Amino acid sequence: MALVVQKYGGSSLESADRIKRVAERIVETRKAGNDVVVVCSAMGDTTDELLDLAQQVNPAPPERELDMLLTAGERISNALVAMAIEALGAEARSFSGSQAGVITTSAHQNARIIDVTPGRVQEALDQGQVVLVAGFQGVSQDTKDITTLGRGGSDTTAVAVAAAMNADVCEIYTDVDGVYTADPRIVPNARHLERVPYEEMLELAATGAKVLHLRAVEYARRYGVALHVRSSYSPKPGTIVSGSVEDLSVEQAMITGVSHDRSEAKVTVRGVPDNPGVAGRIFRVVADAEIDIDMVLQNVSSTDSGLTDITFTVARSNGAEAVAELEKIKDELGFEQVVYDDRVGKVSLVGAGMRSHPGVTATFCEALSNAGVNIEIINTSEIRISVLVRDTQLDDAVRALHEAFDLGGDEEAVVYAGSGR
Amino acid sequence: MALVVQKYGGSSLESADRIKRVAERIVETRKAGNDVVVVCSAMGDTTDELLDLAQQVNPAPPERELDMLLTAGERISNALVAMAIEALGAEARSFSGSQAGVITTSAHQNARIIDVTPGRVQEALDQGQVVLVAGFQGVSQDTKDITTLGRGGSDTTAVAVAAAMNADVCEIYTDVDGVYTADPRIVPNARHLERVPYEEMLELAATGAKVLHLRAVEYARRYGVALHVRSSYSPKPGTIVSGSVEDLSVEQAMITGVSHDRSEAKVTVRGVPDNPGVAGRIFRVVADAEIDIDMVLQNVSSTDSGLTDITFTVARSNGAEAVAELEKIKDELGFEQVVYDDRVGKVSLVGAGMRSHPGVTATFCEALSNAGVNIEIINTSEIRISVLVRDTQLDDAVRALHEAFDLGGDEEAVVYAGSGR
Repeated sequence: MALVVQKYGGSSLESADRIKRVAERIVETRKAGNDVVVVCSAMGDTTDELLDLAQQVNPAPPERELDMLLTAGERISNALVAMAIEALGAEARSFSGSQAGVITTSAHQNARIIDVTPGRVQEALDQGQVVLVAGFQGVSQDTKDITTLGRGGSDTTAVAVAAAMNADVCEIYTDVDGVYTADPRIVPNARHLERVPYEEMLELAATGAKVLHLRAVEYARRYGVALHVRSSYSPKPGTIVSGSVEDLSVEQAMITGVSHDRSEAKVTVRGVPDNPGVAGRIFRVVADAEIDIDMVLQNVSSTDSGLTDITFTVARSNGAEAVAELEKIKDELGFEQVVYDDRVGKVSLVGAGMRSHPGVTATFCEALSNAGVNIEIINTSEIRISVLVRDTQLDDAVRALHEAFDLGGDEEAVVYAGSGR
Repeated sequence: MALVVQKYGGSSLESADRIKRVAERIVETRKAGNDVVVVCSAMGDTTDELLDLAQQVNPAPPERELDMLLTAGERISNALVAMAIEALGAEARSFSGSQAGVITTSAHQNARIIDVTPGRVQEALDQGQVVLVAGFQGVSQDTKDITTLGRGGSDTTAVAVAAAMNADVCEIYTDVDGVYTADPRIVPNARHLERVPYEEMLELAATGAKVLHLRAVEYARRYGVALHVRSSYSPKPGTIVSGSVEDLSVEQAMITGVSHDRSEAKVTVRGVPDNPGVAGRIFRVVADAEIDIDMVLQNVSSTDSGLTDITFTVARSNGAEAVAELEKIKDELGFEQVVYDDRVGKVSLVGAGMRSHPGVTATFCEALSNAGVNIEIINTSEIRISVLVRDTQLDDAVRALHEAFDLGGDEEAVVYAGSGR
């Protein structure tokens, strides 16, 4: 008998009918002889509706109370799925994050899981029950207050519970049937991937692949939890995320896929005096506003003027704040102006093969050049190359790279309704 | 500094605007120098909406999961009220029933409070915070599962918290400004009551006065918690429920009010053999179906036939089941037929004064007779007389009794919108 952890996202639970279908799949897994622990997100738009109510009563809602509010969403969906399971003749018990022993830091809205003590979950499993654990939530070790885990929180709950219980697999059900070599809506012959090592999945998730959340993949890698990314609407096998690129032979290590991201914006600080410490001051001001910087470019300074430009990217949602923070130090640093540009996109190539195959960067740049795509910033890791391009050329760039590295399959990928989340 | 417990019902919280108004009243109470603990029901129709969802996924939802589901409603409203309080510059902390130490039996949907251990509530009060406790919910002492308290649960939570914390007063905010000598929609000159002893309030609540729930009054009486029933929409003082009729002098003991109830139905078992044990058998069958019997009438048997009729009342919602249970023993007992009649209403007169004033029953019957109202069943306690009448004559009966016992005031009562809950 295996222990299977299954996680279902909000769109798989958006109505009573969808909940019944999810319950059928859970009961099938149980009847096949497995112990089953299920982690559910809140139904459909519940979280947004609750956030909207919060805004109406307090434009800056206190974080502790916001967590108290939002966690109600997962309690509702988990209880409903438990009821639907019982309607099919199996036994089920739902637990809040706190009841399931999900212990976190006290950073509301962005708590980290410190420990999972699944005593009650194990007890219910031992009694033959399907166990539901409310995703996205936990209880603070210090204050005993209810916390939430931030974006991708339910994926992280599932992985953490799987790790604590030594589960055989953690199945992440979503609206696509796994990870592809590129977004099938942009590249029609994108190929379905059977297996992706953790490091590559981390790079894909960090560069725009939305199928899995970065933190959940990090957690799975740290505890060696095998993830199975599958579709809620199809019985087809999905993509297994497991193993390390270190274990791959040179022959196995390949280029895995192309990811893209439309969520960043480019900020350029023009005419910066090229003195030591000025760049550091600029990045410190942005960091102090709790804004993450992704790509960075510093031009060689013109020998005549002694001035340089510093360019970096941030999330578009942080763009206005980053600019405002920089304007505050304009006189202090003596730069000329801040230019904000959100008509950009980022395309990335990921694959362990580039560690052992020289020439990948050359092929990458040639492919974009041949497609008429100009590179604005380039940024690499051991197993990834990312470039910033015009947003209007992003799809072309994805297709050109996918073609140049011969990633396509023989047939067209199936695109599921709603896979645009 | 006083400790004030305030309870707000769902209609006072049905929108963001209403929540803000409730928050204003809470903050006023805090700023007046009081410690404040607030118990909120779920917003407006939330509970009904959740019940509807439950029905859609499982027509017979498991009780444990139903409690897990329904309690989300109070968590939402309490967190929102906390946010609205903070928007006004005061500090607030919301706690679930479990966090607030509301320990109950494990009877889901109808749990009884065993104990309240308000350590975290007291700690937050000591830090100057307004504390919100989710009404209607607790945690089972035995199973640690989430429970709900059944009808009137939030009133009971408020009273139990007030008792455990030795509060100076427990204010129950509702859509009317207190208890009246009769329903002002039926009797325009019904008089507002300043103070009602516990026993009279118990009789009024048990016979149809909807302003307070029976269990909450029972709890308040047992622990000596003074209740103040007030309107959410008006600053006027409401009705204080406190003290015993035992403490009233003969002069103080009066007739307090007239209540009425349209929720009962009359069941008559005709042609019952008048043998010992037959009546007991009939009532046992009904009790075994967990149906409460209210009023009972056994006619004197006709000497000719040796047959009698047995008549009793039950809640209309249980009527069909009571009849079905009785039909099953028709042949065994040999009675003629079961007649079901829900065109009835009950009118009651309540007041400690009837203990010491002979003639109240006579005046009662004369008043109804003069109004042309026929009495079908009569039933009395030490401080109450109730009769069953035709439903079409119920309003006339209420008015006739109110007039006969001179209960009216000089002015017309104000009827608030929505007071028909």
